[in-house]
Amino acid sequence: MGRLVMKFGGTSVADIDKIRNVARHVKREVDAGHEVAVVVSAMAGKTNELVAWCAQAAGDAPGHNSASYDPKEYDAVVASGEQVTSGLLAITLQAMGLRARSWQGWQIPIRTSDAHGSARILEIDGDGLISRFQDHKEVAVIAGFPGIEPAGGRISTLGRGGSDTSAVAIAAAVKADRCDIYTDVDGVYTCDPRVVPRARRLDRIAFEDMLELASQGAKVLQVRSVELGMAYRMPIFVRSSFDRPEDIDPAATPPGTLICAEEEIMESHVVTGIAFSRDEAQISVRHVEDRPGIAAAIFGPLAEANINVDMIVQNVSEDGRTTDLTFTVPAADHARAKATISTAKDHIGYARLDTATDVSKISVIGSGMRSHAGVAAMAFRALAERDINIRAITTSEIKFSLLIDSAYTELAVRILHTLYGLDQV
Amino acid sequence: MGRLVMKFGGTSVADIDKIRNVARHVKREVDAGHEVAVVVSAMAGKTNELVAWCAQAAGDAPGHNSASYDPKEYDAVVASGEQVTSGLLAITLQAMGLRARSWQGWQIPIRTSDAHGSARILEIDGDGLISRFQDHKEVAVIAGFPGIEPAGGRISTLGRGGSDTSAVAIAAAVKADRCDIYTDVDGVYTCDPRVVPRARRLDRIAFEDMLELASQGAKVLQVRSVELGMAYRMPIFVRSSFDRPEDIDPAATPPGTLICAEEEIMESHVVTGIAFSRDEAQISVRHVEDRPGIAAAIFGPLAEANINVDMIVQNVSEDGRTTDLTFTVPAADHARAKATISTAKDHIGYARLDTATDVSKISVIGSGMRSHAGVAAMAFRALAERDINIRAITTSEIKFSLLIDSAYTELAVRILHTLYGLDQV
Repeated sequence: MGRLVMKFGGTSVADIDKIRNVARHVKREVDAGHEVAVVVSAMAGKTNELVAWCAQAAGDAPGHNSASYDPKEYDAVVASGEQVTSGLLAITLQAMGLRARSWQGWQIPIRTSDAHGSARILEIDGDGLISRFQDHKEVAVIAGFPGIEPAGGRISTLGRGGSDTSAVAIAAAVKADRCDIYTDVDGVYTCDPRVVPRARRLDRIAFEDMLELASQGAKVLQVRSVELGMAYRMPIFVRSSFDRPEDIDPAATPPGTLICAEEEIMESHVVTGIAFSRDEAQISVRHVEDRPGIAAAIFGPLAEANINVDMIVQNVSEDGRTTDLTFTVPAADHARAKATISTAKDHIGYARLDTATDVSKISVIGSGMRSHAGVAAMAFRALAERDINIRAITTSEIKFSLLIDSAYTELAVRILHTLYGLDQV
Repeated sequence: MGRLVMKFGGTSVADIDKIRNVARHVKREVDAGHEVAVVVSAMAGKTNELVAWCAQAAGDAPGHNSASYDPKEYDAVVASGEQVTSGLLAITLQAMGLRARSWQGWQIPIRTSDAHGSARILEIDGDGLISRFQDHKEVAVIAGFPGIEPAGGRISTLGRGGSDTSAVAIAAAVKADRCDIYTDVDGVYTCDPRVVPRARRLDRIAFEDMLELASQGAKVLQVRSVELGMAYRMPIFVRSSFDRPEDIDPAATPPGTLICAEEEIMESHVVTGIAFSRDEAQISVRHVEDRPGIAAAIFGPLAEANINVDMIVQNVSEDGRTTDLTFTVPAADHARAKATISTAKDHIGYARLDTATDVSKISVIGSGMRSHAGVAAMAFRALAERDINIRAITTSEIKFSLLIDSAYTELAVRILHTLYGLDQV
């Protein structure tokens, strides 16, 4: 017997039939002897409807996005979506003979910062939930994503998609054994299966590796929920919401991926997965003076222009006086970034600006790299054999990233996937 | 300058355009220098949708009404409707340049009994609202109808239509000068204008008279809201939500009816209004023994059968041994009531049962009757002159009711309307 948090997104609770399906998943876990807290989102489409009403009320034309209305009221309006689902699921569970009750963020409470619309969780009081588990054998149905801002006593929300994060935070607060995230994919893969058909679902992945994979574009889970899981060492199990509850063998390990601490992964591969992103632009600043403050002179104006800089590569200068500095930005920001650097030319002091769009970044991720030398060198060799030119390289402890021409993205990704033994057999 | 509570029902906030219209009404009062709390219902149709989902979640077939699901969860689900409207109206008011914020029942708090789904208000803490009026010049937008049950900390609701009642209760809590109820009629009339075309809108009506009118079938306001207004001496102004805000002259008295204490009504008529109800059935129990306990023997079984008895007339017995006892029930319950009394015949002991359907009850209401003799006698005479037979009579301090054949309902109502000087001139 254990304690389990189960999280279901909007498409899993889109109507009463789907809510009933969720209830059957919950019943399966309760019947297996677990104490269960369920975290639910608003019914699919509801949040969009509520957001649109807020914009209209503020006088925005439909489709217009720069709404500047009171985020406290936005939170009060959109939080109602999760409130409805939590009550309906509680009723459904009760109709199946289970004890259940709904919990709103302010009832638990889930205390958050006052950044309405994108609040951060400060503290969750899990004692009330735990005592209900123990004294009432009751399933807690929790509206995922709204909380309460303690000073003002107002409803807050974590921002769109914040329910992954609140599920993990609740799991930590109630000292759960695991947090199950039911999603529209059946787990985390070594690479995007649409690009690499032989991509394998990982049975387990370390928090660190998942963080790199998630922020590199694997859109399975919110980055913040993984950070939280790592901080609280809360295992997160990613599994499919499409599995029919009646088809699941409670004795067997269900299909899915467990995100957990590195030491809980026995059969450790050196490389865990490969992520990539197209739509990068590369900007090389040639012959800048090699002096303190030069990086600030370049990246200060870019930050002020709200341009997100990703890779940064600066080589040790050959002559001790000038050096080349390369960085990447989203392709959509290429022209703005170029203009920003050109405007600051006198202040920075450089000889030439070389830029390229149509480049891709490929990241090879694996916490096993820490103890293995030569992992990156294998990649350089394999790509060179196929005449794929590497424009730039950055490395960290558990990852290295390569910038290449976009045209070679799929080829390079597949070569590396095979090279590191990630292919399905 | 005064303090005002304004209440708008579901049809007044059915979409964003209608909410904007409500906001203009609010702005008009704020511009006139008032401190304003607005009480809003859910957008029209929303509550029905939420109630239907609860029933479906509980496994009820659509249209099936005997849902037996947890009323605590029902309350959590349906309360979301008012939450949405309160946030949207606050956003709309802010977009018009007013300071405004939404308040949920648990934030104020509105403390209620634990009778979920039909809770009674126990206490409203008005201090928070009052200090926001004074310190922030802020409009309070209050979700009308949900509260909080203090022991469990759960959301409660007052039951369908409870927002009239919560508006008056909030007005009392914030020591408002008046509670304005915006409805789909423009006030309280001396009689139903569909039956009496010359019915007049009353400028003022005493709480007592309104209570009688409301419970006799004038469906302008909930009876409980009038009771509450009377208990707290809170003037309630019934006015039309269809009046366009821009057409209203802030200096003039708007069309509508003020429900207030008797002593605030100067031009007092003896009779205030006339109410009637068709669909009554009359049951006369002939020659029952005139002994203690006989009324209990008759009405006990009816109460157990859940039959609502209205008029009861028992005459002083002629011979000191037997008497006749007449009462009315809703026409729909006629057969059941007759069967119930027949079954209990041996226990009651009576000679004969005379019953009639197709009878109507006409009530003449006026707190001025207290100080005027012969008011009812005028009616007896006027009806006799037209050969309208009176089957039974009951009287109270401020009302008398007559039972007549249904066919004469409209005629009798119009005769009495003219007789007591209620006709529009």
